[in-house]
Amino acid sequence: MTDLLDSLGLDISVTSAGIGVSERLDLAVLNFKKPVHIVGLFTKNKVVASPVKCCKDNLKIHKQPRRLAIVVNSGCANSCTGQQGDETCLNVVRHVAGKLDLGFEQVFPFSTGEILKQLPEKKMLHGIDRALQSSHRTFEEFAESIMTTDTVRKIASQKLQVNGNLYTVLGVAKGSGMISPDMATMLAYVFTDIPIELDDFKDLHREVCNSTFNAITVDGEMSTNDSFIGVCSVSQESKGRSEMISRSNNHWPSIFQAYEKVCNELAAKVVEDGEGATRSVELRVEQAFSFQDADRVARGVANSPLVKTAIFAADPNLGRILSAIGASAISRFDESKISVQINEYVVIQNGSLVKGYEEKIARQHMAMKKIKLLISLGVGSASSKLLFCDLSYDYIKINAEYRT
Amino acid sequence: MTDLLDSLGLDISVTSAGIGVSERLDLAVLNFKKPVHIVGLFTKNKVVASPVKCCKDNLKIHKQPRRLAIVVNSGCANSCTGQQGDETCLNVVRHVAGKLDLGFEQVFPFSTGEILKQLPEKKMLHGIDRALQSSHRTFEEFAESIMTTDTVRKIASQKLQVNGNLYTVLGVAKGSGMISPDMATMLAYVFTDIPIELDDFKDLHREVCNSTFNAITVDGEMSTNDSFIGVCSVSQESKGRSEMISRSNNHWPSIFQAYEKVCNELAAKVVEDGEGATRSVELRVEQAFSFQDADRVARGVANSPLVKTAIFAADPNLGRILSAIGASAISRFDESKISVQINEYVVIQNGSLVKGYEEKIARQHMAMKKIKLLISLGVGSASSKLLFCDLSYDYIKINAEYRT
Repeated sequence: MTDLLDSLGLDISVTSAGIGVSERLDLAVLNFKKPVHIVGLFTKNKVVASPVKCCKDNLKIHKQPRRLAIVVNSGCANSCTGQQGDETCLNVVRHVAGKLDLGFEQVFPFSTGEILKQLPEKKMLHGIDRALQSSHRTFEEFAESIMTTDTVRKIASQKLQVNGNLYTVLGVAKGSGMISPDMATMLAYVFTDIPIELDDFKDLHREVCNSTFNAITVDGEMSTNDSFIGVCSVSQESKGRSEMISRSNNHWPSIFQAYEKVCNELAAKVVEDGEGATRSVELRVEQAFSFQDADRVARGVANSPLVKTAIFAADPNLGRILSAIGASAISRFDESKISVQINEYVVIQNGSLVKGYEEKIARQHMAMKKIKLLISLGVGSASSKLLFCDLSYDYIKINAEYRT
Repeated sequence: MTDLLDSLGLDISVTSAGIGVSERLDLAVLNFKKPVHIVGLFTKNKVVASPVKCCKDNLKIHKQPRRLAIVVNSGCANSCTGQQGDETCLNVVRHVAGKLDLGFEQVFPFSTGEILKQLPEKKMLHGIDRALQSSHRTFEEFAESIMTTDTVRKIASQKLQVNGNLYTVLGVAKGSGMISPDMATMLAYVFTDIPIELDDFKDLHREVCNSTFNAITVDGEMSTNDSFIGVCSVSQESKGRSEMISRSNNHWPSIFQAYEKVCNELAAKVVEDGEGATRSVELRVEQAFSFQDADRVARGVANSPLVKTAIFAADPNLGRILSAIGASAISRFDESKISVQINEYVVIQNGSLVKGYEEKIARQHMAMKKIKLLISLGVGSASSKLLFCDLSYDYIKINAEYRT
């Protein structure tokens, strides 16, 4: 990772600022001491946390490579906190800017945790001071500091060769509950030393988001703080080159692939670490009339509590899947053309149980930790994919006891 | 109830036909030996059970008062059962028609229970024969025979005076899980000896459905078998009158009120008996820009697993309510104008915690068995209502163990 850190001039500072209830790492400052490009996508919830508003504003004016900083806290989302929340956020940003000799608009704040709680400003400012005294921390520690109900740190990375240079794409995410597009409730950061043109970086980031973080669901909930950030290097002196890479570059497909692979891996980690999740399901809806239809069926099935509890029980209660398909608002539908497959086992054909269906076999497939579910609507050629998890006792436990 | 039974010429037959797994009442035949009017509304799921298709067809040709019969089984939904399911349903209808000397189109079949399971035809036909030998059963026994995961029988009734005559409106329903409009997953039957013009009866039935069974949710699931049926008398010889009552009648408002009261009571019983439910919440969304906006917010909040688990825990985790509001697809929204009230306690004002908010008090209100939740959006004058319940361990237990 030294190459990546060097190329971005990145210094990671992490501390325990006492923002949440427990004594744990909950505050990180990422200081990019070399000019970089930053891109970002955010929640589509109409209730938006203060840091999200601030990030969006700061992103709008990012045109040229700049030094910048990221400040993240867990334990409090600073959401639905009114004017006071906005002001605290600004004071945090100002404080980091002052400390690192940056402009206000070069600091990007993020918060995750409980909604409606005011962010404790004093603790944040002291925490930032303390963090900056303990820099040179690792990506692992950064990953840990942004966790809330997550049970594992979520990091993924890829190496790739472009024009004879070895590059890294490294991603860090948090997310476990309140997970559904757009976007999965989470913070996700991808860093790379590949020097990418800003506009192409934006496109790359958006396209990859659609196929990864926007294609997972834990509980169908959309949070007020979702943020997905990309940061890339712009200076290549260390590699003996200076020009930026655009999407017309021959290596673009492999750059795209590496970026997508990192995000896919992070997205899968979020689902597998979904609150109370015991299984994950890779759902593919095929032969739909339109992508929208395919997507609606996928989300309808993946967010159905009855389907999710059946998956928890490894119970091939296939009627619930058919009912969820029928309940989705799709434009073309023919019950008699639906087929369903669990892993390689075809269970539904022409809308009914397949001839010779054996529940015992279906149950064996459902009992696996990772399941592939294929729904074919038989009325077109569009398709979509969605990764989701089951609904277990522990989801209730975690969410009924979150604050108590 | 003798008056009501007499006026409809209704004979209730109930038996245990062994359709489901346990030895319980699971088959009912209602024989209306006098001409009556029948109206019905059904699920909007695109996957539709065989009996629903048959009922819809038979309803279409109901124009004149006729003798008719209703046959209902629990333990199997006869849904997603293909051509075989349709044929079994037709054979059941033919069998009842033959036994009661009715035309095929005078018999209305209903099934509730597991999806994708073929309805055992022999058991059904034998059960019908056995049931008809044990007639003169009560509404209570009918209510019991249609239960699935229900824990209580659901009956409601109202008496009212119209033109000097005493009339009854009596309703019977089942429903506990897979409950969401349109419609709540359920079977519901309302019987009355009020002689109502067919077209006005249809309107009454539809209007009341919207404000009652279409305004509840347990788990946001839409079933394949939902049916809501109304049957009214047409002959009034016993009351010394013969003309039918139309909506221009002076007493129409009280007829409407009685019908709505019965359905409201049944709908509330369904929510209170919701799978795993420990609390019910009467949600009202006010000051929305449009009814659609109000309705979307209501459904978004009522179906949010995070809101529902917080209610289970009596935890005033109000941020989840605001997040669910923001996540709903509404046209006008201003976070700073939102207010939220739990029972009489105002908790959110201008989008933030109210001044002097005390969590202890909010928690006391949340701990009640029946909660009133008022969300005011502050951007218009439209409103909507929705009754829902919490999400508890027992919902998972019931649905993970349903077939095992």
